[in-house]
Amino acid sequence: MQFHHHGYVSGDPRVQNAAAEGLHRPDELPEQMDLLIVGSGPAGMLLAAQLSQFPEVNTRIIERREGRLPLGQADGIQPRSVETFQAFGFAERIVAEAYNIGYMNFWTPDPQQPENIIRTARTEDYAFKISEFPHLIVNQARVLDYFAEAAADGPARIAPDYGVEFLGLTVHSEGEYPVEVRFRYTTGERLGQERTVRTKYVAGCDGARSGVREAIGRKHLGAVSLHAWGVMDVLVNTDFPDWRTKCAINSEAGNILHIPREGGYLCRMYIDLGEVADDDNHRVRQTPIEEIIRKANDILHPYTLDVKEVAWHSVYEVGHRVTDKFDNVPEGSTQSPRVFLTGDACHTHSAKAGQGMNVSMQDGFNLGWKLGQVLTGRSPENLLASYSAERQPVAQQLIDFDREWSSLMARKPEEISDPQELANYYLATAEFPSGFMTQYGPSSIIGSATHQSLAEGFPLGKRFKSAEVVRVCDGNAVHLGHHAKADGRWRIYAFADAPTAGQSSKLAELAEWLGSAESPIHRFTPAEADIDAIFDLKVIYQQAYEEVEIPLVPDIFLPKTGPLGLTDWEKIYAAAPSAWTTSNIFAERGISHDGAIVVVRPDQYVAAVLPLNARGELTDFFAQSFLERRNLSDSAPHRP
Amino acid sequence: MQFHHHGYVSGDPRVQNAAAEGLHRPDELPEQMDLLIVGSGPAGMLLAAQLSQFPEVNTRIIERREGRLPLGQADGIQPRSVETFQAFGFAERIVAEAYNIGYMNFWTPDPQQPENIIRTARTEDYAFKISEFPHLIVNQARVLDYFAEAAADGPARIAPDYGVEFLGLTVHSEGEYPVEVRFRYTTGERLGQERTVRTKYVAGCDGARSGVREAIGRKHLGAVSLHAWGVMDVLVNTDFPDWRTKCAINSEAGNILHIPREGGYLCRMYIDLGEVADDDNHRVRQTPIEEIIRKANDILHPYTLDVKEVAWHSVYEVGHRVTDKFDNVPEGSTQSPRVFLTGDACHTHSAKAGQGMNVSMQDGFNLGWKLGQVLTGRSPENLLASYSAERQPVAQQLIDFDREWSSLMARKPEEISDPQELANYYLATAEFPSGFMTQYGPSSIIGSATHQSLAEGFPLGKRFKSAEVVRVCDGNAVHLGHHAKADGRWRIYAFADAPTAGQSSKLAELAEWLGSAESPIHRFTPAEADIDAIFDLKVIYQQAYEEVEIPLVPDIFLPKTGPLGLTDWEKIYAAAPSAWTTSNIFAERGISHDGAIVVVRPDQYVAAVLPLNARGELTDFFAQSFLERRNLSDSAPHRP
Ligand SMILES: Cc1cc2nc3c(=O)[nH]c(=O)nc-3n(C[C@H](O)[C@H](O)[C@H](O)COP(=O)(O)OP(=O)(O)OC[C@H]3O[C@@H](n4cnc5c(N)ncnc54)[C@H](O)[C@@H]3O)c2cc1C
Ligand SMILES: Cc1cc2nc3c(=O)[nH]c(=O)nc-3n(C[C@H](O)[C@H](O)[C@H](O)COP(=O)(O)OP(=O)(O)OC[C@H]3O[C@@H](n4cnc5c(N)ncnc54)[C@H](O)[C@@H]3O)c2cc1C
Repeated sequence: MQFHHHGYVSGDPRVQNAAAEGLHRPDELPEQMDLLIVGSGPAGMLLAAQLSQFPEVNTRIIERREGRLPLGQADGIQPRSVETFQAFGFAERIVAEAYNIGYMNFWTPDPQQPENIIRTARTEDYAFKISEFPHLIVNQARVLDYFAEAAADGPARIAPDYGVEFLGLTVHSEGEYPVEVRFRYTTGERLGQERTVRTKYVAGCDGARSGVREAIGRKHLGAVSLHAWGVMDVLVNTDFPDWRTKCAINSEAGNILHIPREGGYLCRMYIDLGEVADDDNHRVRQTPIEEIIRKANDILHPYTLDVKEVAWHSVYEVGHRVTDKFDNVPEGSTQSPRVFLTGDACHTHSAKAGQGMNVSMQDGFNLGWKLGQVLTGRSPENLLASYSAERQPVAQQLIDFDREWSSLMARKPEEISDPQELANYYLATAEFPSGFMTQYGPSSIIGSATHQSLAEGFPLGKRFKSAEVVRVCDGNAVHLGHHAKADGRWRIYAFADAPTAGQSSKLAELAEWLGSAESPIHRFTPAEADIDAIFDLKVIYQQAYEEVEIPLVPDIFLPKTGPLGLTDWEKIYAAAPSAWTTSNIFAERGISHDGAIVVVRPDQYVAAVLPLNARGELTDFFAQSFLERRNLSDSAPHRP
Repeated sequence: MQFHHHGYVSGDPRVQNAAAEGLHRPDELPEQMDLLIVGSGPAGMLLAAQLSQFPEVNTRIIERREGRLPLGQADGIQPRSVETFQAFGFAERIVAEAYNIGYMNFWTPDPQQPENIIRTARTEDYAFKISEFPHLIVNQARVLDYFAEAAADGPARIAPDYGVEFLGLTVHSEGEYPVEVRFRYTTGERLGQERTVRTKYVAGCDGARSGVREAIGRKHLGAVSLHAWGVMDVLVNTDFPDWRTKCAINSEAGNILHIPREGGYLCRMYIDLGEVADDDNHRVRQTPIEEIIRKANDILHPYTLDVKEVAWHSVYEVGHRVTDKFDNVPEGSTQSPRVFLTGDACHTHSAKAGQGMNVSMQDGFNLGWKLGQVLTGRSPENLLASYSAERQPVAQQLIDFDREWSSLMARKPEEISDPQELANYYLATAEFPSGFMTQYGPSSIIGSATHQSLAEGFPLGKRFKSAEVVRVCDGNAVHLGHHAKADGRWRIYAFADAPTAGQSSKLAELAEWLGSAESPIHRFTPAEADIDAIFDLKVIYQQAYEEVEIPLVPDIFLPKTGPLGLTDWEKIYAAAPSAWTTSNIFAERGISHDGAIVVVRPDQYVAAVLPLNARGELTDFFAQSFLERRNLSDSAPHRP
């Protein structure tokens, strides 16, 4: 964690200095704003936290509810989401309070006595095999609390306007604030009052029954048939021995997905209520909790639940659906979008694979920095078209997987020939439900794979998979990727060729060029901003940390920034193992010993892999999505 | 982290339910109280956080300052302190924001050009070699913030009364509240007003110039000669390559202890100003900051500092001193103490070995649970005599070490024959400055070493060194010691003999006896309290977690507690390595395969090591410090 950069900070370093819009944020929704986020679920709150790092942007977030979500809804957190939490500064805190999934056990009818269930398989969870972060279970409410804290403590000081319901919007073709939004107060003195405001952009993060989706005339496509789950968060006493282990339970009486919850006592049970008949008309939602508990007891036979407290329950009806496009621009048009859909507003999933909250957050992460770049004038408006182009196919792919997976999980015991089969499938497809299968195709913000062989372990379009390196200034083993906070900056990692600092090398030549006026860093960073305000450049030498002498490292890796012009010591890394790590990032990520440039986007996806001497290509790549250097004295990007 | 035990908790689980005194804590200092803590430094704040776990006790803490400490003072955090923070619930948060010491480098004059310093040795820090926790540098103010949070969020909801200055006290020989305390308001409406209150006990945590010490007539003993250090927390630009590494710098111009601080930019320099002359009369304190900076530059030659901001500076004069006794009872008397001294009030150290804040916290940790046990009626008053008996020798030992260490560090370059010598000494004595050398001798709360061979790795009287085990209920690898929160409870670890659960074994016999009316658990736990309210009993089987079937584990390890009578699933562990850990606690801590009982005190010190069948000895041990089972309906110990 870096702080004290603008001078000494006495209190919690997680609270950044307020800046720009954050210095005088009115309580009242203003008449005009840059961005209006509708809905404070996982997608909306991540977006708010992300935009809080762009304090020049006037962002507001409205929510129909009167206040914070107290309980219920989703709870499964994929490793990819925990990586994201790390970037927002709260991974270690949420890990400390969450349930960590170590195993998933499978229960099926005892062949001898089929009315009884028996444990037939234990499978290790996959998280640590593909990430340095675990697979967690924690209340959606707590996830939202942490994002709310990040939004409030960021320089823009963003907090939701609760008790405000979106009613409708009109996208005008002219004007600086072309989107007209109607809303109504749902609480307080102005209960029932309606108002109209103007904004440049709207993010529709308003969930499965999205009013924003309706307002822009987009439709959910796909099977309308719904699957119903009785869901309960319960405190019980039980003789079921796997109460604290995640289980898939297939019995003659039905199926349960059993999820232990944070805190050591509470668990969630998803009791399969089957496909909802077309003429059901939501009657399934009337299923009483007693019926759900009774059914759970039947499925668990010979074990029983003695329910002491029902913290929350619901009948959760969900279909696999996806919207054809995630913005307001008609297919084929080259207009830039003004309204976006994220999360459940444009795709819904079964609860089983635990996708909903996780995918929704990644939507927000994809959209946030793009809005930030456009609204601060760093990038042209058409960058925003890439949001739907990138996220819609991901959602579609997830829906397809989800359908396959869910039907597998819902099969009757007699259909499963081999009890190991499900377990095997579960492991084989681990990357998918962990959130790591997403791969964006080539575009203005994902380069071509021509030089992929220089860094095989950083596939273009996939998330940058961190590894340990040694920070040269103090010899600490740190995760290279963990330095990349969700601050809206791009990362350029210069993996050095064989010589160390002070020797002539391709790296040294690159550094010299990067420091020159020709370099994309200079060309695309506003003149008055810090040199690392947009591009956070780091070097990783192949040597051990003792073999890199800081005075011999090129200046561009020791930038002097901020009001005090202080040297940043945390841009220089060493790859060879040390007393504190056995990792060597060159070996672990297949990086060429001739070196490589790896460019990573603000949402942590690998954008370019290039040779150290590919100067023209590097410049060309950034020129596709950045505007030339300008003198932006009144909207200099902020760096904490 | 365990919560939801009393029913569902929606918000931050670190905030426990208020109870007893915490339900109606008046803002105003009351006329009478159980315990008055004087001073909100590390010792006092730890004590407040600890007593917050005893909500039946009416604890108040007064502080002369108007509010929280904003900056300055100590910053070195030993691994033992981080272990302590873990028990108070904030280790992961403070680790995330602190500077982690990976190396200590040594600089001495260049033999070729003695006016220049050169790096002569790098030594790895010792922390991870003797603890699972690092050696940190973080502002004392932040340590106090976290303890303040723990005190405020504990069931007793304790917060300091700021702006209240202790003036004096009288210990009367009679009455339920025998200590009369005089104080004055130093701020607000009542500025200057004096008041008198009555309390059962006073903890003097009021620092080096302790008024409490004076009031009970104790004197600092030992060398009066003081050593002066110019200390500065500065933001600089510099060409000194080890700016971000801890260094001991011995140059011809003097000595510096260089300490990088949290946040990546700030560092602290201790510039040696030498022994203070007897007739100095604190003139050294007038040393201007310019002089300190000039001296630092001289010592660093040929490197230079360009100071951008001085966050804090001070001339810190400190002598090696210790008070002969840490309570108000005259040597030889069998009276029970009423007034205690902790931290700097009874011992001071040089800044170099970084002891001050750390030892002070361990004083508080030692005293806190004893006050809690006595004030809730669990233990007789004479337990409190053990505080001075245990802590005074520790302080004396530290002072001796400190003197030796400091003089070594202050030697002139020409006196050091071998540059490796200091580095070697540093490593060889690692256990001491990490805070792990403390070993309490046999007493009513430390048993005899007769059976030490059953658990060689848990030396009696030393802190319980945690190791990883597998939690049977969910297969997660967890640190056994991390379950032991600073909640005032004792831990009894039953390390099983060879058979697993369900087979006849010495462990099974022990469990049966522990569940009977004869057992010390029953005899010393109040009748109306939960069975684990005082003694937190756990079992560790030798098998892999898959080989321990929970339904076969004795009931005493699956207690049903709290208002809902909920099963606690986190008392059963397995030692054999698993998918998630290579550790085997039996091997790592030299535990006999015949099993062993290991008893650990609330402050994490090993109190007894016994064979599984040593029933009489176990009962006798607890009978020395606990009162027999009582029916305490109005002061049932609280468990969150
Ligand atoms: C009752 C319920 C139970 C669920 N249970 C599960 C579960 O058991 N397991 C699981 O994996 N997932 C579950 N989900 C789904 C999961 O919560 C979502 O996938 C996830 O929250 C999607 O995030 P989001 O930000 O897209 O939308 P949401 O979290 O739905 O957030 C949308 C927000 O927009 C607000 N909003 C809606 N309309 C308006 C408006 N007109 N004006 C202003 N604000 C508006 C809503 O109040 C809400 O806060 C459940 C969802 C619901 C609603
Ligand atoms: C100015 C200063 C600089 C220091 N610098 C360093 C350093 O550089 N490195 C290092 O390792 N250690 C340093 N120390 C020492 C280190 O801070 C202490 O060892 C540590 O704080 C001891 O903790 P404590 O709780 O015993 O006492 P303290 O932290 O001293 O706390 C005592 C508290 O009691 C309060 N108090 C005192 N008298 C009264 C009264 N009559 N009524 C009410 N409240 C009262 C004080 O305001 C203070 O908050 C410094 C201490 C001071 C005071």
